[in-house]
Amino acid sequence: MENGSNSSSSNNNNNMVVVIYPLSHYYFGSKEALPDKEEDSFTERIQRMRSNYAAHGLRTCVQGVLLVELYQQPHVLLLQVRNSFFKLPGGRLRPGESDIGGLKRKLSRKLLHSGSDSSCDWEIGECIGMWWRSDFETLPCPYLPRKAKECTKLFLVRLQMTQKFAVPKNMRLLAVPLCQLYDNDKTYGTIISGLPQLLSKFSFTIVRE
Amino acid sequence: MENGSNSSSSNNNNNMVVVIYPLSHYYFGSKEALPDKEEDSFTERIQRMRSNYAAHGLRTCVQGVLLVELYQQPHVLLLQVRNSFFKLPGGRLRPGESDIGGLKRKLSRKLLHSGSDSSCDWEIGECIGMWWRSDFETLPCPYLPRKAKECTKLFLVRLQMTQKFAVPKNMRLLAVPLCQLYDNDKTYGTIISGLPQLLSKFSFTIVRE
Repeated sequence: MENGSNSSSSNNNNNMVVVIYPLSHYYFGSKEALPDKEEDSFTERIQRMRSNYAAHGLRTCVQGVLLVELYQQPHVLLLQVRNSFFKLPGGRLRPGESDIGGLKRKLSRKLLHSGSDSSCDWEIGECIGMWWRSDFETLPCPYLPRKAKECTKLFLVRLQMTQKFAVPKNMRLLAVPLCQLYDNDKTYGTIISGLPQLLSKFSFTIVRE
Repeated sequence: MENGSNSSSSNNNNNMVVVIYPLSHYYFGSKEALPDKEEDSFTERIQRMRSNYAAHGLRTCVQGVLLVELYQQPHVLLLQVRNSFFKLPGGRLRPGESDIGGLKRKLSRKLLHSGSDSSCDWEIGECIGMWWRSDFETLPCPYLPRKAKECTKLFLVRLQMTQKFAVPKNMRLLAVPLCQLYDNDKTYGTIISGLPQLLSKFSFTIVRE
């Protein structure tokens, strides 16, 4: 319970520190390819989103921001599809599914071995930002439009000190420093290039042991 | 104390709601002009920052993000100086001064009648973002550079239901909607045009009574 600005700000300070571990703490294996919906044509994708919207209403996507240390700088883990575009691990919620539950399911599906029992190990932190689309053809914007058809919620994922990842064969997992993402929406898109801002309030503690 | 992702995310949900009141709840008077350091030439300002840095090291600025409702949309209160550039209310900390204490002092100086006793009424919320300059001539960036000379911290200020403001005669106070700020750094500068992103994780509750 908050009862004043000072207690509020000191409570928040606890959440403001993010412990990150060196990239070398993590093991990256590979696993079977995941179906890549982005291979459909633009028209097919728009059509699919339209019929989903008609059936289920506002589409909610959840994405995880996973951080590691490299060259003493925080890096974000990004999936690269077909040597071209980048995305954060995550995906669309099932109807009725919770943000946290859906994100854990998606992270396990994209980044762990199938049948892996460690889905409960994901520590999902706070929501750091949201993006909305008022239509499926338009770029996302960071404020609620009059009519939203899609909402993308970004969550900080606090990684354990070590973890075995399994990356689908048709994707690459890359660690990209914040300075490379910033203001680089041509390469990374609006949402990913905005991550440095959303992460700017955190202080990063690098743990090496 | 946090002991799991679920409790963490539900704790955070309480902070994610921002109650905002209509612009008409607030009274805006005027008061004597404040000295405008921006009137110095660019060279004079750089020189002043350099000697301050030599004497005190990293310069920290704190700025407040004050929100009101207009046309059912959240608007940010901005000060406009000499009919040209916009800034958030705030300013530079004194050596040894706390972020919260310094921001309260600056908000009172910029937005309340002199001698007003209500400085303790400011409810300073969480830090929503930070920007650093590695040099005084360069644009700020939202990640810590190798060597930082200036840090600007943005705090959400939770306004009371009603308040009497007093705006210095040489400035105007404007309420600007998020959609106008977004991606508009030519008009508002890098920091202010990034506010919609930093505020995107909050849900706004408009209270009219």
